[in-house]
Amino acid sequence: MEEKILELIKNKKYGLLKTTLSEMNPADIALIFDVIEPGELTLIFRILPKELAAEVFVEMDSDMQQILIESFSDAELRAVMDELFMDDTVDIIEEMPANVAKRILHQTDANTRCMINQLLAYPDVSAGSIMTTEYVDLKRDMTVEQAFDRIRKIGVDTEIIYTCYVMDKGRRLQGIVSVKDLLLNDKNCIIGDIMDENIIYATTLDDKEEVAGLFEKYDMIALPVVDKEGRLVGIITVDDAIDVLQEEASEDIEKMAAILPSEKTYLKTGVFETFKARIPWLLFLMISATFTGAIISAFESKLTIFPALIAFIPMLMGTGGNSGSQSSVTIIRALSLGDIEFGDILRVIWKELRVGLFCGAVLCIVNFIKLYLVDFLLMDSFDLKHEISEMITVCITLFFVVIVAKFIGSTLPILAKKLGFDPAVMASPLVTTILDAISLFIYFTIAGVLLGI
Amino acid sequence: MEEKILELIKNKKYGLLKTTLSEMNPADIALIFDVIEPGELTLIFRILPKELAAEVFVEMDSDMQQILIESFSDAELRAVMDELFMDDTVDIIEEMPANVAKRILHQTDANTRCMINQLLAYPDVSAGSIMTTEYVDLKRDMTVEQAFDRIRKIGVDTEIIYTCYVMDKGRRLQGIVSVKDLLLNDKNCIIGDIMDENIIYATTLDDKEEVAGLFEKYDMIALPVVDKEGRLVGIITVDDAIDVLQEEASEDIEKMAAILPSEKTYLKTGVFETFKARIPWLLFLMISATFTGAIISAFESKLTIFPALIAFIPMLMGTGGNSGSQSSVTIIRALSLGDIEFGDILRVIWKELRVGLFCGAVLCIVNFIKLYLVDFLLMDSFDLKHEISEMITVCITLFFVVIVAKFIGSTLPILAKKLGFDPAVMASPLVTTILDAISLFIYFTIAGVLLGI
Repeated sequence: MEEKILELIKNKKYGLLKTTLSEMNPADIALIFDVIEPGELTLIFRILPKELAAEVFVEMDSDMQQILIESFSDAELRAVMDELFMDDTVDIIEEMPANVAKRILHQTDANTRCMINQLLAYPDVSAGSIMTTEYVDLKRDMTVEQAFDRIRKIGVDTEIIYTCYVMDKGRRLQGIVSVKDLLLNDKNCIIGDIMDENIIYATTLDDKEEVAGLFEKYDMIALPVVDKEGRLVGIITVDDAIDVLQEEASEDIEKMAAILPSEKTYLKTGVFETFKARIPWLLFLMISATFTGAIISAFESKLTIFPALIAFIPMLMGTGGNSGSQSSVTIIRALSLGDIEFGDILRVIWKELRVGLFCGAVLCIVNFIKLYLVDFLLMDSFDLKHEISEMITVCITLFFVVIVAKFIGSTLPILAKKLGFDPAVMASPLVTTILDAISLFIYFTIAGVLLGI
Repeated sequence: MEEKILELIKNKKYGLLKTTLSEMNPADIALIFDVIEPGELTLIFRILPKELAAEVFVEMDSDMQQILIESFSDAELRAVMDELFMDDTVDIIEEMPANVAKRILHQTDANTRCMINQLLAYPDVSAGSIMTTEYVDLKRDMTVEQAFDRIRKIGVDTEIIYTCYVMDKGRRLQGIVSVKDLLLNDKNCIIGDIMDENIIYATTLDDKEEVAGLFEKYDMIALPVVDKEGRLVGIITVDDAIDVLQEEASEDIEKMAAILPSEKTYLKTGVFETFKARIPWLLFLMISATFTGAIISAFESKLTIFPALIAFIPMLMGTGGNSGSQSSVTIIRALSLGDIEFGDILRVIWKELRVGLFCGAVLCIVNFIKLYLVDFLLMDSFDLKHEISEMITVCITLFFVVIVAKFIGSTLPILAKKLGFDPAVMASPLVTTILDAISLFIYFTIAGVLLGI
């Protein structure tokens, strides 16, 4: 499809292009528009029917949106903006440089401008920042028939019409009625009698990730948002909730891998931006490895007496790190999905200790067998006494390292959340660095006792 | 709220309990029911109004569902099953032991049973496995008024009525009409004239994760599913798509942390199950660390000449692992979101090499400064010549390790996907283990050249 469109553009077959594009989905058109030449873009964009043009515009990259806006006449800009839903307009303005944003605001009427400014004021992490202000409002003394009239009147410009909101004179939310309820009741029924007063709602300053979680829990397609006084100020639609959930998962994954989160897709992020997102943690973790180095340095002279011990350092540190990150990652995801909270910390610790005990025991035994069969029987280069005691040192260390790793890996994210930090940064890399130092410390302590060094 | 309900149950205030529960959301009631005593559960469940009871039942844990089913009379079981949507019934049957599943099937009529068996046959990863078979079907020669009559007739038992599907006599999908279209058109309009023929659909055997991705891309609330002959067999609703997206993210996160994915929430997974999900990778990674150990052993005698080199092993391996997992995790998520595909491999490599070059250079320089200031000036315990050449060895190694790590971390997941493996297992732990060995090899090679060992 993409090739066909680009071919049509190349051959300037605009009539056929218009027919083809008119039958396509806005999201697919936007993907193609994102890769065509800026000069051509303006031309092709003007071919689209007005409504489709606005729908495509919303789906495009902000860079391309900016190119288009700068090429628009004031009348064209107004035409596109008029078609947009309020939340999309706000998203676009947020991405634009100040002069472009100003020009957009200038093209909207005073009422809309006031509303946009209000929406722009909500913090980026709040429910207010993802809500739209267009919805169907009803009064409790309306009949079903009047409700349908109201939907017909304002429905064209409303994103989701299937849930209607019943408000009193002070715009306080009284109940909700779905179009399903309206369709399944007689046209003379009174809204107040059929509305559901048991409403799930959010307030403007709620965390948007928690609000998005409500969609998952309650299977809704829209959620009302009220201000501190209980007045309805907007609704959040399920498509925006999905975007928040996906962004949140991507962010958690990035933080777990010691990357500063970014909002752009991989190929659209520049080399320098990617570098900037990755270098801070790499630097921090490199510097903190100084402690691990210092522990080794302190035991350097003893290690030269038992040089075979050196060869086990990567395995011990690796197993400790892996055990710890298994726990931390599981706990971080569970915290993020709302499956556990701070009050569960003792249950978590008790569970992780038992899991650690089993894992530690199995790894300890398997490692002993492996050492005995491979390193001891096949490559007996050392004298017997050293070998056996070294093997025991390694295996006992392994056992304790795994248990400690599970304990630290599971408690740090919970404590981080309790203290108001983001639990996701307590994932693999940071936990691993801490565990590296602890693993070595356990190793050398046990070696000191068992080997007398 | 939970305390209040438990209090009412304890004091046997069933009248008040019924009123309170009737005003609550099914998902919230289910959370409370999941923690009450099995004996009491059956009693309390019978208090709920029929429809609410079924909605609560769907949201409950499968363990608790089984307890309830086993306490139900046949009539009660049939009453609950009658209220359920087809996809929920199938989900429940899939979780039950064979004898319970058989009993449920026994309580449904022949038609439903046939449909359930059909749905049960779709592979767990397919779009067919998450679809429901209840939807509003229209014919193209109906009027808007007739369409509304049809919705009123079958709407009560249908999960999502806001998108209606227009089919020909062979049940082939011709177009879709939203209730919004119906409401905004005159009641005498013909469906064929207002329906949208540009349909986004899935086929029964499509991968359910890719299908869920369509919801994100096209902002839909329901998606039709057709069979190989283009006949409509069911629809997927947005709430199920959200569940698939969230499960997929959790699975990727688990795989990235070397855990076998599980479907249960953290606290509901037993200690032994958690152990079983974690031990395979721990064992595999422990055994593979033998290679790293072998490389160190091979250089053991040389390391005793330059014991200071040992102290840098954790830092070099750690930085290599972190650099590599930054790349692999970013690429895995991008693959999973559909942002990149195999054809982008050269662009990805070219980008990662440049990012690696910058990161490597910065880490190399910062590490040299740090070594010079801290290790060299503050703790000058070695003779000068060794120190400087060792410092240079470490810094040059660091530079190359980071570049190699970025290269391997980014290409392995793409190659894995191309070969039909799951890219997510190419994340941190496996990549780290490979990089550990490579990092040491680079280290000792450079040390060999620069220090003449």
